[in-house]
Amino acid sequence: MTLPIASVPNGTVTSAKGFSAGGVFAGIKTPGPDKKDLGIIYSEQPCAVAGTFSQNTIISSTVVLDQERVGTDKTVHAVVVNSGCANTAVGEQGMIDAKEMTKLAAEHLGVSEEQTLVSSTGVIGVEIPMALMREFIPQIEVTADTHGGNEFAKAILTTDKRTKEIAVSFDVDGVTHTVGGVSKGSGMIHPNMATMLAYVATDAKVDSAFLQSTLSEAVKLSFNQIDVDGDQSTNDTVLLMANGEAGGSEISGGDEASETFAEAVRQVCEFLAIEIARDGEGATKLIEVTVDGAASDDDALLASRSCAASMLVKTAVYGRDPNWGRIFMAVGKAEIKLDEAKIDCYVNDIQIVAEGKGISYNVQSVVSALGGDEVRLRVALNIGDGYGRAWGCDLTEEYVVFNSAYTT
Amino acid sequence: MTLPIASVPNGTVTSAKGFSAGGVFAGIKTPGPDKKDLGIIYSEQPCAVAGTFSQNTIISSTVVLDQERVGTDKTVHAVVVNSGCANTAVGEQGMIDAKEMTKLAAEHLGVSEEQTLVSSTGVIGVEIPMALMREFIPQIEVTADTHGGNEFAKAILTTDKRTKEIAVSFDVDGVTHTVGGVSKGSGMIHPNMATMLAYVATDAKVDSAFLQSTLSEAVKLSFNQIDVDGDQSTNDTVLLMANGEAGGSEISGGDEASETFAEAVRQVCEFLAIEIARDGEGATKLIEVTVDGAASDDDALLASRSCAASMLVKTAVYGRDPNWGRIFMAVGKAEIKLDEAKIDCYVNDIQIVAEGKGISYNVQSVVSALGGDEVRLRVALNIGDGYGRAWGCDLTEEYVVFNSAYTT
Repeated sequence: MTLPIASVPNGTVTSAKGFSAGGVFAGIKTPGPDKKDLGIIYSEQPCAVAGTFSQNTIISSTVVLDQERVGTDKTVHAVVVNSGCANTAVGEQGMIDAKEMTKLAAEHLGVSEEQTLVSSTGVIGVEIPMALMREFIPQIEVTADTHGGNEFAKAILTTDKRTKEIAVSFDVDGVTHTVGGVSKGSGMIHPNMATMLAYVATDAKVDSAFLQSTLSEAVKLSFNQIDVDGDQSTNDTVLLMANGEAGGSEISGGDEASETFAEAVRQVCEFLAIEIARDGEGATKLIEVTVDGAASDDDALLASRSCAASMLVKTAVYGRDPNWGRIFMAVGKAEIKLDEAKIDCYVNDIQIVAEGKGISYNVQSVVSALGGDEVRLRVALNIGDGYGRAWGCDLTEEYVVFNSAYTT
Repeated sequence: MTLPIASVPNGTVTSAKGFSAGGVFAGIKTPGPDKKDLGIIYSEQPCAVAGTFSQNTIISSTVVLDQERVGTDKTVHAVVVNSGCANTAVGEQGMIDAKEMTKLAAEHLGVSEEQTLVSSTGVIGVEIPMALMREFIPQIEVTADTHGGNEFAKAILTTDKRTKEIAVSFDVDGVTHTVGGVSKGSGMIHPNMATMLAYVATDAKVDSAFLQSTLSEAVKLSFNQIDVDGDQSTNDTVLLMANGEAGGSEISGGDEASETFAEAVRQVCEFLAIEIARDGEGATKLIEVTVDGAASDDDALLASRSCAASMLVKTAVYGRDPNWGRIFMAVGKAEIKLDEAKIDCYVNDIQIVAEGKGISYNVQSVVSALGGDEVRLRVALNIGDGYGRAWGCDLTEEYVVFNSAYTT
């Protein structure tokens, strides 16, 4: 059982006590109204820290550096993030620049370099313009209010259409604990691959091993279940920082407060992940795929993600085509246990397949359902209790235009 | 070593002795000039037969039936194929109709039902219009000439833009052996997923176990290395039939004739696979990705396929964008062994990356290379002798239009 969890109005990464943030425009990206490309999240108190990172064999030096500085018994004070340049595939200069960015941020904030993390997102194969970093990192003002969190949320965007921010809170023995977060998703500067970045900050005091297991489980059910285009960035990073400023007892698993904390982190991650899927390049709608009645939760997670990632499901939803043959194909290619003759399918709540075969449904109602901003596909396998969800977006001409627009 | 292998002019599936074929328009697809949707390949002599089939958990009844009838010590005389309807996800009716199709073809040809195979391609979830099958299967005239092979090649197309046909021949001790084949790739009728079908026929006399191992190896290097949209059909089928009509000695492995036969089959499969990639939905060009210097051939096959299947590589090639960061991302997400600092990349023969970093190349020459009908990407990993190739096509707005055009 968990305690009640409440949404925090205008919640962001600074909603948790003791966290401040800010962002500036350094000139890495092309200028634009209210554009930022460099930001910092800071906590005066040292934070226990957990992280999950890209599984790509080729990763940014920033990811290598963060992996060294994140872990049990390590603490951090800050993370500095730039957008517009990925600091990836630039040889040895990558690590030199990543380290200097943390040094510049640490000196600016008066903390140690080893307790400062760094992320970059943007074009691969181009060195970070360090002259801009040296000039602008010292100019980043961090504030503990919503404004500070919002400035940071802007600073990490590439061509995302909007910021992605949330916070939730729960009370344990009269002490309010808050979990806030920001993320960015799919975009490009010079047409390029996107990076998924997310930062979650809490004022709960959390045991570092429990912090990592909580984050890993939440990421498994959220960020690892979204798909825009099947491609995996070299820079993907999710960080969870806990500074203990709420003043409550340590959260280390095995009780109601811990379960509530894990649920709050999951909710924040799920919201931030869904917002990334919704804001995918060229997307006009969010697709939520639920698979239930699977042999296991893992099977349901695999099948739902296969469906959310299928180009033919994405284009069918875009075209408002209740083409359940493509859903069958996508579930089947996940190579999970299933019995074709037991499968039911629904679009929103309208059943279109019963026991493996199409039924006579009102086509226009399904076409209308597929025309909304959010489309819910449900595949009931009816062979067990396994349950999983995944989120994607539709695939439109705009995605192709976006990613093939080369301008030399 | 292999013996010389020659191309057969106007080669097709009937180029091998003793095979005849034909096709008719039965009315499953919408009518059009010279359109066919139902065809047969036939051999009077019984054929040893090998097959590879879709790995999707949900497969057509035609695939289930063919799997039962293909194998060591089994022989077949014919395969009947319709386009326009996949005979998939239609419940128990699927197998009833698949069997009846083979019965109709067997009666028409005067062979046994158990020695007749069947494939279907088209919309999922719709039953085969058996009234049309009963009327038109008996009307299919099979002929042993190029015309017959060409009619069959037309009959299996969905929205492929052209037929895919080839034959090669080689002499063993003065006896000419021929291997001919046809395939079809990505298309739709009512917007739907594509099916990959290929039929290879040879007049060589081949031991059935050697026939299967030859086909499996050839498919691994050809059909399994192409990608249009990452989705895997429920009906994918490749069949290899050998009727021994050339009159040569049995080919059973371990000698020059066997190696030559395997090489001829590989060449036919590679040609047919490349033609499918080139003719992918909405494609404007063929992309060939070569990975060499890998730790193993399997690593090279995986990495080349990951690259050929990446939506961001496909859109970059479409946009003539020499964006090697996307190539790095795609190679890295294959999770093979590599050393980033040793990677070289080439577009056609122009080097753009040396030792993991971008070099100063003439941009316009690369943009021009990317503008051709065929683009060759090469990734040299420089850590071993592993070699592999894969083929894809670019991703264009047309693919999205094609697959989202719902018209009710």
